[in-house]
Amino acid sequence: MPKDMTTPTDIFTRRESEARSYCRGIPAVFTSARGSVLTSEDGAEHIDFLAGCSSLNYGHNDPDMKAALIDHISGDGLAHGLDLHTTTKAAFLDAMDTHILAPRGMDHRVMFTGPTGANAVEAAMKIARKATGRTNIIAFTNGFHGVTMGALAATGNSYHRGGAAMATQGVTRMPFDAYAGGVDSAALLEQMLSDASGGIDAPAAIMLETVQGEGGLNAASADFIKKIVRTARKHGALLIIDDIQAGCGRAGTFFSFEGMGVMPDIVTMAKSVSGFGLPLALVLVKPEHDVFGPAEHNGTFRGNTHAFVTARVAIEKFWSDAAFETELAKKAELIKKRLTELSRMIPGSFLKGRGLMRGVDVGSGELAGEICARAYERGLVIETSGSQGQVVKVLAPLTTSVELFNKGFDILIDAARDTLETTKFAAE
Amino acid sequence: MPKDMTTPTDIFTRRESEARSYCRGIPAVFTSARGSVLTSEDGAEHIDFLAGCSSLNYGHNDPDMKAALIDHISGDGLAHGLDLHTTTKAAFLDAMDTHILAPRGMDHRVMFTGPTGANAVEAAMKIARKATGRTNIIAFTNGFHGVTMGALAATGNSYHRGGAAMATQGVTRMPFDAYAGGVDSAALLEQMLSDASGGIDAPAAIMLETVQGEGGLNAASADFIKKIVRTARKHGALLIIDDIQAGCGRAGTFFSFEGMGVMPDIVTMAKSVSGFGLPLALVLVKPEHDVFGPAEHNGTFRGNTHAFVTARVAIEKFWSDAAFETELAKKAELIKKRLTELSRMIPGSFLKGRGLMRGVDVGSGELAGEICARAYERGLVIETSGSQGQVVKVLAPLTTSVELFNKGFDILIDAARDTLETTKFAAE
Amino acid sequence: MPKDMTTPTDIFTRRESEARSYCRGIPAVFTSARGSVLTSEDGAEHIDFLAGCSSLNYGHNDPDMKAALIDHISGDGLAHGLDLHTTTKAAFLDAMDTHILAPRGMDHRVMFTGPTGANAVEAAMKIARKATGRTNIIAFTNGFHGVTMGALAATGNSYHRGGAAMATQGVTRMPFDAYAGGVDSAALLEQMLSDASGGIDAPAAIMLETVQGEGGLNAASADFIKKIVRTARKHGALLIIDDIQAGCGRAGTFFSFEGMGVMPDIVTMAKSVSGFGLPLALVLVKPEHDVFGPAEHNGTFRGNTHAFVTARVAIEKFWSDAAFETELAKKAELIKKRLTELSRMIPGSFLKGRGLMRGVDVGSGELAGEICARAYERGLVIETSGSQGQVVKVLAPLTTSVELFNKGFDILIDAARDTLETTKFAAE
Amino acid sequence: MPKDMTTPTDIFTRRESEARSYCRGIPAVFTSARGSVLTSEDGAEHIDFLAGCSSLNYGHNDPDMKAALIDHISGDGLAHGLDLHTTTKAAFLDAMDTHILAPRGMDHRVMFTGPTGANAVEAAMKIARKATGRTNIIAFTNGFHGVTMGALAATGNSYHRGGAAMATQGVTRMPFDAYAGGVDSAALLEQMLSDASGGIDAPAAIMLETVQGEGGLNAASADFIKKIVRTARKHGALLIIDDIQAGCGRAGTFFSFEGMGVMPDIVTMAKSVSGFGLPLALVLVKPEHDVFGPAEHNGTFRGNTHAFVTARVAIEKFWSDAAFETELAKKAELIKKRLTELSRMIPGSFLKGRGLMRGVDVGSGELAGEICARAYERGLVIETSGSQGQVVKVLAPLTTSVELFNKGFDILIDAARDTLETTKFAAE
Repeated sequence: MPKDMTTPTDIFTRRESEARSYCRGIPAVFTSARGSVLTSEDGAEHIDFLAGCSSLNYGHNDPDMKAALIDHISGDGLAHGLDLHTTTKAAFLDAMDTHILAPRGMDHRVMFTGPTGANAVEAAMKIARKATGRTNIIAFTNGFHGVTMGALAATGNSYHRGGAAMATQGVTRMPFDAYAGGVDSAALLEQMLSDASGGIDAPAAIMLETVQGEGGLNAASADFIKKIVRTARKHGALLIIDDIQAGCGRAGTFFSFEGMGVMPDIVTMAKSVSGFGLPLALVLVKPEHDVFGPAEHNGTFRGNTHAFVTARVAIEKFWSDAAFETELAKKAELIKKRLTELSRMIPGSFLKGRGLMRGVDVGSGELAGEICARAYERGLVIETSGSQGQVVKVLAPLTTSVELFNKGFDILIDAARDTLETTKFAAE
Repeated sequence: MPKDMTTPTDIFTRRESEARSYCRGIPAVFTSARGSVLTSEDGAEHIDFLAGCSSLNYGHNDPDMKAALIDHISGDGLAHGLDLHTTTKAAFLDAMDTHILAPRGMDHRVMFTGPTGANAVEAAMKIARKATGRTNIIAFTNGFHGVTMGALAATGNSYHRGGAAMATQGVTRMPFDAYAGGVDSAALLEQMLSDASGGIDAPAAIMLETVQGEGGLNAASADFIKKIVRTARKHGALLIIDDIQAGCGRAGTFFSFEGMGVMPDIVTMAKSVSGFGLPLALVLVKPEHDVFGPAEHNGTFRGNTHAFVTARVAIEKFWSDAAFETELAKKAELIKKRLTELSRMIPGSFLKGRGLMRGVDVGSGELAGEICARAYERGLVIETSGSQGQVVKVLAPLTTSVELFNKGFDILIDAARDTLETTKFAAE
Repeated sequence: MPKDMTTPTDIFTRRESEARSYCRGIPAVFTSARGSVLTSEDGAEHIDFLAGCSSLNYGHNDPDMKAALIDHISGDGLAHGLDLHTTTKAAFLDAMDTHILAPRGMDHRVMFTGPTGANAVEAAMKIARKATGRTNIIAFTNGFHGVTMGALAATGNSYHRGGAAMATQGVTRMPFDAYAGGVDSAALLEQMLSDASGGIDAPAAIMLETVQGEGGLNAASADFIKKIVRTARKHGALLIIDDIQAGCGRAGTFFSFEGMGVMPDIVTMAKSVSGFGLPLALVLVKPEHDVFGPAEHNGTFRGNTHAFVTARVAIEKFWSDAAFETELAKKAELIKKRLTELSRMIPGSFLKGRGLMRGVDVGSGELAGEICARAYERGLVIETSGSQGQVVKVLAPLTTSVELFNKGFDILIDAARDTLETTKFAAE
Repeated sequence: MPKDMTTPTDIFTRRESEARSYCRGIPAVFTSARGSVLTSEDGAEHIDFLAGCSSLNYGHNDPDMKAALIDHISGDGLAHGLDLHTTTKAAFLDAMDTHILAPRGMDHRVMFTGPTGANAVEAAMKIARKATGRTNIIAFTNGFHGVTMGALAATGNSYHRGGAAMATQGVTRMPFDAYAGGVDSAALLEQMLSDASGGIDAPAAIMLETVQGEGGLNAASADFIKKIVRTARKHGALLIIDDIQAGCGRAGTFFSFEGMGVMPDIVTMAKSVSGFGLPLALVLVKPEHDVFGPAEHNGTFRGNTHAFVTARVAIEKFWSDAAFETELAKKAELIKKRLTELSRMIPGSFLKGRGLMRGVDVGSGELAGEICARAYERGLVIETSGSQGQVVKVLAPLTTSVELFNKGFDILIDAARDTLETTKFAAE
């Protein structure tokens, strides 16, 4: 690491693609991080309410995972294992089996896809198509599933869709739960699929996030999801839950769909599944739909063995008993309470989300952006979501202490107050 | 790591998807690896002529990278950094700039895509389409570019293509260099593109590997590539070199296209770019084609900071002077020599490939598979490639010592001799 | 014409494709037709309430068109004129200009496409895409626009869609007016298009029939159409009215959209536009969207000169003053009155449609089919429509006399009564 | 017909779409036509070497067809019959059976598609896809199959392809016979299809014209077609011969593929099949591939009964014995002789085509266009073809008398001589 870097961002401007993004609003150059705190080159500490967009649910450099990983590397444990058997992968699968799948009555197989969420989504969509012999997949307004061509077809955001510079294929868009006033979205989908002239091809799958993270923290009701499951079953479609952002405890339970009486055919996981922020993505697929042949969907890094190490520790540490889930419920209440406080300051604003995946829709992307910018100046890293960036979104590590949560919220509320008082937004 | 695992593979059978592949022919359960040697649970050592399919060009657990990585983790360096600025990323970019790009006269920007080769290819294809306003991309017979929908359109292999269970789009297939007897592939492409009724839409890009790794180690001639460049320029198409497998020294130079008088508009990199087998993928793109807006192509793991640490060390250690390249030239000769020896044993067989990416086409996938299986029994991990798996492929770490290379080749030749003597292939 | 044909249908069974359809339910072999009466080989007369699916709005062999056509042929007038100038085409265009376009304030250009409705729709979709540089076209549930690949993408019927045996592209499906209870379809479309994460690509066009003929005689309200126009204008999309079935007086006015305060950018016409049942199709396109270059959309039979002869007579005879339109209004009332009578006999049934394009939804395709079958036995040719064939549809020639209308309705009502009394439907 | 039209073309300029084409180079306003002579409004006679682009193989207003058609209309014969049985259709099918199909050992079914060539091609492609369960169709450089989206995918011409303003799908382009020097096109296709990594999806069909009319009169060799048939059979693909332009005697036999030892699975016909220039299109399909259900592919005008009348007469008059075919052979020789004469005048030019579908490639579209323009001034209607319009193409009615043929050729040669002598082309 260069010690004497005096103009550290010059190299980014000169050599990094314009596609870089977060660093534009959060221009600090970071050096280290621990728990819910990021440290920048100048020694400043930043509370992290972004958590790698929910990739760091257990915080930065969790000491147990860190120790296990250093131990693994020191002992010349494999870094890269293709899809070869390793004791490390076995241990991860054992943990997944013992603490996650079996207790939830899930007989799903674990498929290691390329270690990006998009790759897991691509695999899930391919599986559904291969298993059903159909091509059409139903996705929803404001859904975000990645930006590779297959996944992008399912992503609603027009900015990302435009990046393809060509039409995508194989996806039919439907309104998400509570999308439009007076419209029962699930009933509309059911009617169109049941109508022989509804013009929607018989679907291979219906794919959704139970809480749309990028889409603005839209939480589907259990009733909506149950109706969707019924429609999927009736029309021979698989149900894919994309739990990449809402999974791993973010919604308050390991899977976001727990407690809804729903069992997806396919679940996609990424982001926090490695526990440590390392690239790892999984597809959980019911055995009867585990239709890929050997390497039919492949990828060089599907055996990111370092990630198996930390992922195993994450499961064993946080999910081997109910303690963590209980703690999450309390923190979810805290978040709700503090966001309610924030919302009350902003006329017309309202709470969004569920569990520890919550925010406030402040009605305008400009206002939300300004609040986050001022929070950043005060030492809080926080971002917006939603189609207009109109939702101030809290995605703090789930392990954030109550004290730090409150400190972060104090900053956020202070930033909001300041914004409202000193800008034109106040007058609106 | 579970110490008492007595039936370690049971968990794989029960819980891992049928998509698992290499572990079927190489069933050992591995525990650790160093340099060019893999160690399995039973203590057996295996010489690695597979190298994570060219993802471990510098061998397993290179001591310098390992030390730097442990140091980074110990110091709570970031694991996951989205696309935020970090001193670690700056150091990597500096190394890339200083030792790789600048010396080769490349003003390309570095785009961190999702850390899979397929994701880099998807980004490259999207860039070419956005930059040109066209959709068609020319790809070649036996090309392999990944299995997500956008990249899969460019991949030739029908087994992988079939996994999509739907038609792909946006790619026109042309014969690769020397594909068909009597056909000048580059001239045919030029003619079809120049013909107003050639029926091939004006291309956004022509994309190729200079040596087709999965496709059977087909090495394009410099003449072919020059003609392709001319055609690309003439028709306003970008040239994308997919250097995911052939790059990072595999072909004998850092980029596989060096010394051909060619400057691609876009280069995709993955596999060995992190040096340590960690997931990392890059797109190098000329500034005038760096057309993505902020996060227009995004992904959670595009800031795999651990990989930046090792990638920097890899560059500084191996590419800051000419020593390594000189060493590679010698080893390439050694490989060629020993493979010639092998080829002489097998009537009708012939050498394929270039640099340290070589193999022997033995004429049948069955024979090649059997040779590799017997080599595995003797302690050598080696795989086949080609559309029929007919090529015995050597992708050893570039850092493999001459002694170990020879030991590996001795095993391989012994395995081949055994195969030829004792099976029906001998009679053929 | 073979005089001694004793088994006239044998040749159809042996040599005609299984794709033949109407002849299965209406097995008579017809020899001649005049006005609203078809005569079959056995001398039987059949009242025609099908009218070539609205292709014979002026009845069979209108004496004035017939005389003009015979005169044209006798004088060696051109039959086939490519898109060369002919005095015949000039005369047709003059009539179209004088009696149809100019009086309605339409500056549209007339494009002669291949003489099928599907071809006109294909041309319209291509024009919209070329004019806007976008690919997506919004079409609606139960829309029917033809079965060639471009048009089929817009057609809702799953049976026809299935005929493609591959996914279509370039169309987004939305619910039609009043499609689903509680859903304001126009508002939903507006919301999804205005939402940056609505997931519907910016449309080149919104395409609809004001009355969906094949789709079950669903008549859009003027309010819906006005909202659609507003949405189209707001989002830079063209409005395409597919008036192939509802045009040429069928809805009571020459164009079906008259009196709605709407001016489409593009109108497709076919079916009755030749007046005589001869193949002719047109696209009317506003000059600013007349973007095809010479022959960019071409076709051998776009100059079906015989059709120009009869089309001119049809316009001059029926549309040079208001008399015919006044007559249509009266007949529309008659149809409504008699169908109300029919509907009252069938519990749960209700009227559909508008103008002279009306029917009764009897709730089941089986019942509707049986009523039509029994009507056929009594000398009335009539068909069903709707996604389940649940609508008994009256598409009589507009020139049908009141007497013959009543005779036809008497048969229909008699057939319905008979069906209800003697079948299981009665008990339902 | 307006008697006093003084500026007859004004209406075209004002009201006809810019898509009009032939009338730009051939601006006369035609009034009547008989045999091979067109008469324009000013009384001038024009010899017709265009013949409606091969839609008028039996000339204009053949007296026997004309009489039968007037007789049919006078007797109130049906004009429009949907796909109902009519005695007229039966008589046509009988003629087709007796004189065309049975004598050639063809058990094909006749499918009446919408009456455009493009519609027949769309139906053929859909049939092949439905019959095989595959989507990919192989088409060739310079192939022309129509401009609706499905057919356009198979059409090579970039100007027409561009009219779609979006990417087409489902077709793989391959070089046609003798397309590129040194390339055995059939062998290349065979190799790519046989190669598991050839990157061409298993085809539903291979579709070709035996002589590419619009593409520049490229005549495939019997050897090429036989190899294509072998490849189709080997890979489970159907063979579609698009005989729309080359059929109905144009190549010297009724079907263009006669005498090649080839039996296509599907044949498309249009243009001259009605004999009189009336819109009619057919798909001939082997019974085992007659997979459409009733109306699965439909269209309003598939029962153009007037066309059945003339089509029957055409078959009975010209194809009930061998006389016409014998006559065609002689005329083909005459055409060849006179075109050789033309070609000798133009350095570097050469003959193209086969049968009565011949021309001279003069090397430049500008030169070919100028020759045709000067021929037009001298009373000969003739057009160019080929991707650059570089081929002067003779598509005279097959019934043109030897005398008139010679008169036309005299004009053509005179026009060429004049062009060569007085323009810059002479110096080139």
